[in-house]
Amino acid sequence: MTRLEQQLQFIVEVDKVKNIFRQTYLADARRKENDAEHSWHIALMAYLLQEYVQEPVDVTRVMLMVLIHDLVEIDAGDTYAYDAEGAKTKCERESKAADRIFGLLPAEQGAYFKSLWEEFEAYESAEAKYAHLLDNFQPLLLNDATGGISWSEHHVKKSQIYKRNEKIKETSPQVWECMQKIVDKHIREGHVQDE
Amino acid sequence: MTRLEQQLQFIVEVDKVKNIFRQTYLADARRKENDAEHSWHIALMAYLLQEYVQEPVDVTRVMLMVLIHDLVEIDAGDTYAYDAEGAKTKCERESKAADRIFGLLPAEQGAYFKSLWEEFEAYESAEAKYAHLLDNFQPLLLNDATGGISWSEHHVKKSQIYKRNEKIKETSPQVWECMQKIVDKHIREGHVQDE
Repeated sequence: MTRLEQQLQFIVEVDKVKNIFRQTYLADARRKENDAEHSWHIALMAYLLQEYVQEPVDVTRVMLMVLIHDLVEIDAGDTYAYDAEGAKTKCERESKAADRIFGLLPAEQGAYFKSLWEEFEAYESAEAKYAHLLDNFQPLLLNDATGGISWSEHHVKKSQIYKRNEKIKETSPQVWECMQKIVDKHIREGHVQDE
Repeated sequence: MTRLEQQLQFIVEVDKVKNIFRQTYLADARRKENDAEHSWHIALMAYLLQEYVQEPVDVTRVMLMVLIHDLVEIDAGDTYAYDAEGAKTKCERESKAADRIFGLLPAEQGAYFKSLWEEFEAYESAEAKYAHLLDNFQPLLLNDATGGISWSEHHVKKSQIYKRNEKIKETSPQVWECMQKIVDKHIREGHVQDE
């Protein structure tokens, strides 16, 4: 197989993320969102919201990180943010998936994508922190647009949202403030449980 | 409205491209692809295939260009590549759409996105040529994966595909060669008309 053929095999394989649906509804609430749409959205947000990040970030690296961050779900499936059972096996399932999927690429491109995905998962670098902020903020914006139906359906608690997003406060005080306002509004409206 | 509120209004507005469906089927042929999925896919391809482009390109600029290139379709709708009637009014419809949609952003971000979109449409810079290559090559890969059903449905002719992709030969001889092989295969199989 030529180098180009390897790359094209990967490109066609990752088409499958378009069929991996998340728990978040689109802004019009008519259907749930899939991983490809979500990744497109946050790559665009990465460019637009960079001014609000405390630490300097390499935006290109963040864009690429978010474009590939969900590819492991082709094999491992989507684990809902507040699914405690699924979380137990998530790491092992996703690690195997990363080996197979990034392994389709020529060695150096596959290794680079795997390292970017590992960096995202480690949630330590400035780029990974910004990528997580986007990954968490985007469904919150969509949930807000729909009147909080995904939170209502899953009986989500304020404490769960705060726990999941605790690092965002230091990554971007402005985005954190905006998120708090949105969550507070949905507590008042009864879509998020206040405990 | 604060600057952040303007940006968030844009981010929620562009969610609508997830409901703009193209004529191309996903690789598994079970449904058609939407603009957000398509844009995600070619932004990822922009990184992976940069080595095949003749002129040096700023890959970040290309990624951003392809992430936003279809936003005008929120107002103007998708015009199929081989729809001669639709093509007549496409330019005017899309130009109005660009003013409204990019106009939601803070002035300098909106102006930058509009200039990127105009650069894409002008099809002259190295970045625009690479973006068009990706925009045309990706549906060809998906069409190939499905056994050419979109070409069959629209009775597409070899001459139409060649006309649409004529600049790709100079942008990337390797990708052009690969595209020719795919088209030739689908002519032999009767999915593309040889005239």
